[in-house]
Amino acid sequence: MHILITGAGGMIGRKLTDALVAKGALGGTDITALTLVDLTAPPVPVGVPAAALAADLSAPEAAQALVESRPDVIFHLAAIVSGEAEADLAKGYAVNLHGTTALLEAIAAQRDYRPRFVFTSSIAVFGSPLPDRIPDDQPPSPLTSYGAQKAMGELMVDDLSRRGLIDGISLRLPTICIRPGKPNKAASGFYSGILREPLNGQEAVLPVPDDIRHWFASPRSAVGFLMHAAQIDLAPLGPRRALSLPGVSATIADELAALERAAGPDALKLIRREPDETVLRIVADWPRGFAPERALSLGFRAETDMDEIIAVYREDEMGG
Amino acid sequence: MHILITGAGGMIGRKLTDALVAKGALGGTDITALTLVDLTAPPVPVGVPAAALAADLSAPEAAQALVESRPDVIFHLAAIVSGEAEADLAKGYAVNLHGTTALLEAIAAQRDYRPRFVFTSSIAVFGSPLPDRIPDDQPPSPLTSYGAQKAMGELMVDDLSRRGLIDGISLRLPTICIRPGKPNKAASGFYSGILREPLNGQEAVLPVPDDIRHWFASPRSAVGFLMHAAQIDLAPLGPRRALSLPGVSATIADELAALERAAGPDALKLIRREPDETVLRIVADWPRGFAPERALSLGFRAETDMDEIIAVYREDEMGG
Repeated sequence: MHILITGAGGMIGRKLTDALVAKGALGGTDITALTLVDLTAPPVPVGVPAAALAADLSAPEAAQALVESRPDVIFHLAAIVSGEAEADLAKGYAVNLHGTTALLEAIAAQRDYRPRFVFTSSIAVFGSPLPDRIPDDQPPSPLTSYGAQKAMGELMVDDLSRRGLIDGISLRLPTICIRPGKPNKAASGFYSGILREPLNGQEAVLPVPDDIRHWFASPRSAVGFLMHAAQIDLAPLGPRRALSLPGVSATIADELAALERAAGPDALKLIRREPDETVLRIVADWPRGFAPERALSLGFRAETDMDEIIAVYREDEMGG
Repeated sequence: MHILITGAGGMIGRKLTDALVAKGALGGTDITALTLVDLTAPPVPVGVPAAALAADLSAPEAAQALVESRPDVIFHLAAIVSGEAEADLAKGYAVNLHGTTALLEAIAAQRDYRPRFVFTSSIAVFGSPLPDRIPDDQPPSPLTSYGAQKAMGELMVDDLSRRGLIDGISLRLPTICIRPGKPNKAASGFYSGILREPLNGQEAVLPVPDDIRHWFASPRSAVGFLMHAAQIDLAPLGPRRALSLPGVSATIADELAALERAAGPDALKLIRREPDETVLRIVADWPRGFAPERALSLGFRAETDMDEIIAVYREDEMGG
């Protein structure tokens, strides 16, 4: 089995690569080739036959070159994050929309080729007003450019799946928490920061009030979603291939309470409250929770509370 | 006021051009320049200062050249019709998606420029299962590539409107009936053909059963929608700029009854029933009717029955 990962140099891409290499197989079939692509070539892993490439997917010829070797499974993770897509309109559309359409059009142009296509969409396809628990039939209603670009990608994944040109699925990933490493340009960065920094003895800035609620899953769950989506029978999804995923609905207060349970009351003293109206305006429009029945019935699983999310971070990033 | 029309050589584009030239103004402001664009340059009308250009919008530099003169109002009609977009995937995405995104990105790249942008979307953004009367909050659920491409365009019109880069509106045009002239490649062509051909003493093929119901408006109403959309205050729409429009919900039987009332029983003898499973499968997924409350409240108006639609055809195409 040949697997292609775009955006393989990103946080999820690297963890997905590690998980695939550790298993050496996907859905019971050995991995015979692993192609990793990003704007700069990711490191080549040891353990499976792998190649790493530098490519800009928004250039159509780059997308074409990638699919000419006809990978069986394509994980399309390459994206500009929400904050950057809002700040730089042209870059966001180039990567998030045209990078996706170029890849899908290159696949469609091949004959007798129908790869499994796993597209990382986002809960940012939903904008207010939203119910507390968003049902599976909630229509996308993005209020950010990032969300609009992901919703457009979902439509094309649906269309090409309907036409039998891909066997596609769009995963509306929850906000990933706790992201390891440095903050990125996502507007959601503080949700991880207020746990990650104190767990590592450092100060963190909290720009929103304690009652703000949002939807989370760990990096480990995100990798689990991707691997699961690459293996299962997608026929039960019918023509609607975009899936909201399980996660934890938690407020800032829930996060801080779990932090205190995990690291003691001193950890809370590392939180510096600096209200930021711009950030608040963005996150106030975001989903607070989901009722992801379709994903649950297909066997997708995530953490059940913030304590578990913190425990996963400690196991995976802090050596347990 | 400078007005740009893409797809100006098409049936609606030509009628819109005629209507604008006849009025010489839009929303009370004189038309000082009219730029008409299509793959082959449309005829230059007499009466207002006008220019006609041949351009392929899916080439980004073409889109850029068009908006450099900063038209105040842009009617974006250029599109590949449903049947052709389904038959030729690459062409459909090139024109219907990339032609639209290139134009919008070229606008967004200009400084201090926020034109009125009227995008012709389609009721094809909706696919079954659908209620008999589709409400304004019905989520797009396309089951054709044409519908997917139009739904993607709507998302980008919403996004750029939200960002203040355009003052945009997407009009989900009903199926236009009675289209004058020769059949085009739209799968919906027969809906016009079974009226137009007998009204002109010719045979017409009917590929679907009499109880199939669909949603119609005349070419005159379509031009009225476009002109109205270019003039009204769009602020009441908020961030959701896609609008389902008024029309006539009618079955094939309703069409034929109106034909008989207009042209007598002999006209019905010109209908040749040739059931076509492929056509039936396509149109069976299409909308049967709408409850277009938002459009009605904004003052959009269409015909109220098939008799009126036939009367409009006779007035506009047969000299009354």
